Amino acid sequence: MSSLSRFFDELLPVVQSDLRAVLAPPANTPVLFYRMLHYHMEWVDQDGQPVEIAGGKRIRPMLCLLVCRAVCGDHAPARPAAAAIELIHNFSLLHDDIEDRSPLRRNRPTVWHIWGEQQAINAGDALFALAHLAIPRLADGNVDGALLARILEIVDETCVELTRGQHLDILFETSNEVTAEDYLSMIGSKTAALLAASAHLGALAGGADETAQSRYRAFGENMGLAFQILDDVLDIWGDPTLTGKRAANDIYQRKQTLPVLYAMQQNPELRDLYARQVPFDDQTVGRVIDLLNDAKARQYAEELARRYSDHTIAHLTAARPSGDAGEALFEMIDRLLHRER
Amino acid sequence: MSSLSRFFDELLPVVQSDLRAVLAPPANTPVLFYRMLHYHMEWVDQDGQPVEIAGGKRIRPMLCLLVCRAVCGDHAPARPAAAAIELIHNFSLLHDDIEDRSPLRRNRPTVWHIWGEQQAINAGDALFALAHLAIPRLADGNVDGALLARILEIVDETCVELTRGQHLDILFETSNEVTAEDYLSMIGSKTAALLAASAHLGALAGGADETAQSRYRAFGENMGLAFQILDDVLDIWGDPTLTGKRAANDIYQRKQTLPVLYAMQQNPELRDLYARQVPFDDQTVGRVIDLLNDAKARQYAEELARRYSDHTIAHLTAARPSGDAGEALFEMIDRLLHRER
Repeated sequence: MSSLSRFFDELLPVVQSDLRAVLAPPANTPVLFYRMLHYHMEWVDQDGQPVEIAGGKRIRPMLCLLVCRAVCGDHAPARPAAAAIELIHNFSLLHDDIEDRSPLRRNRPTVWHIWGEQQAINAGDALFALAHLAIPRLADGNVDGALLARILEIVDETCVELTRGQHLDILFETSNEVTAEDYLSMIGSKTAALLAASAHLGALAGGADETAQSRYRAFGENMGLAFQILDDVLDIWGDPTLTGKRAANDIYQRKQTLPVLYAMQQNPELRDLYARQVPFDDQTVGRVIDLLNDAKARQYAEELARRYSDHTIAHLTAARPSGDAGEALFEMIDRLLHRER
Repeated sequence: MSSLSRFFDELLPVVQSDLRAVLAPPANTPVLFYRMLHYHMEWVDQDGQPVEIAGGKRIRPMLCLLVCRAVCGDHAPARPAAAAIELIHNFSLLHDDIEDRSPLRRNRPTVWHIWGEQQAINAGDALFALAHLAIPRLADGNVDGALLARILEIVDETCVELTRGQHLDILFETSNEVTAEDYLSMIGSKTAALLAASAHLGALAGGADETAQSRYRAFGENMGLAFQILDDVLDIWGDPTLTGKRAANDIYQRKQTLPVLYAMQQNPELRDLYARQVPFDDQTVGRVIDLLNDAKARQYAEELARRYSDHTIAHLTAARPSGDAGEALFEMIDRLLHRER
């Protein structure tokens, strides 16, 4: 069994119990108020009955705990930050589902789809506030107040980044002038910032010095960039039976991901197709993929992802993570970025 | 000139400059991202041009600063908390406007009405995160980290209260079983919690002991309850030329405020009117007001407000606020609760 798998087995229950402690309903709470949150976290069904489903992958809190352990030999100091990060991630998904009008998340109806948009916006806001409360609620009474305040500052700077990324993503939906650089700026905020913060907070909580904190942060950020680019590649060229989504879903949705933006620079036909304000049918999607292949867009994106992936490894190596947790972090890179070492 | 007016003249520019400092766009920011926030704060028009309008009343940050000054003779220690509270208030208005489908706020089109709902939800989230960042960004480097962490904890507990209140308010729109007690629980969370926190945070930042903090908190909470009840009374029986809203706006919107809930307990005809799922015309609104008058609903609500108002004064008196700022706090009660002393 790999180090990473062992750590998942050990730490996932820790994360889950921390998340449940933060979201425990106090006395005198309207029943539905917390039920919407517990449903979104995949703990209950819409009637409030417990469900047994796999739940999210919890990559971000795991990253946070592993970095902390690789820094100081113990994951415990990072538990408040790890829970906060996971709840922030879930808050952003709840609001993204409303903004994107997604009826389903992981094969279940979304919160807004069940309880309406008014309640869903408000439930997301509640989850946002509760994510912050994870820090004082899970912190040991001995933790230095200045450290708690610094953790919260990083959490909120990250939230501003997330909303910056979402702002750009929404703008790009109706723009014909998006560049590959714009796209990288968008995913830097929308995807990479939270992974950067997860690693950064783990290092901070573990007592790493500023230099090591920066290295862990850069490791998380580059891993996030590489991961998102590879995810976009997989959407188009991956095996639907492995990805769990219909093939080329992003293209059906006319998302301007990196391969598309790269190919557009060379091919006016592709630009024209995306400029048309009509849904893409199967034939158009097929044509788009042909044009992407002609432009070698897959090779371009994979090469860029490889570069971020190399940076990821270089930053983690420079940070000198120790012990089994360090080993597990390298494994996490392999797992997330489909690399063989 | 009253103490309160002098303090408003002195402190409003302080609050404004703090708010602008927290919402200053960093380099490399998409222009529209902060413009939506500055528009909502009433600093610019929708093209980003500065506007000269009165702006919000900033009651909450003023309350926070005045309490701090009444505790320790200086308002400065409460500046970060005062800015955070005002930004939280504005964040909640931004999302409320979406949830309530309000096209106008203070005679200007709302953010969602101009830039669409996707961007507006996201802009509110950004404002929420930035409200938190007011604390570290405005705090003097000398401030104790434990104090910052405690301030943030109170801010987030208050946000959970706000969302609890909004949750109930949304539920009540479609319920025929709301009681006066439910209504008081709702406004306790939706209106009073933020005023309670404003006074509490001012006392905490000023170095008040736990007992004094509780008294200031209870003062703010009771003032919030009395204020909301009187606001609901004014909506129905106030002079539209003074309130600035059309008379009986809440009744046209079929809101179940305290006078309505009280009268419903006695009058089946009123219950039936509110059970019908049709908009109220002028004639129905007139009939509703007649029934409220028959039930002496105004007297009931004013008597309850008077009781909360008495508590407000008692708690503030027990807190022993000192100097001109203390005087100004008593004036604030008079002003907000229309009392003559």
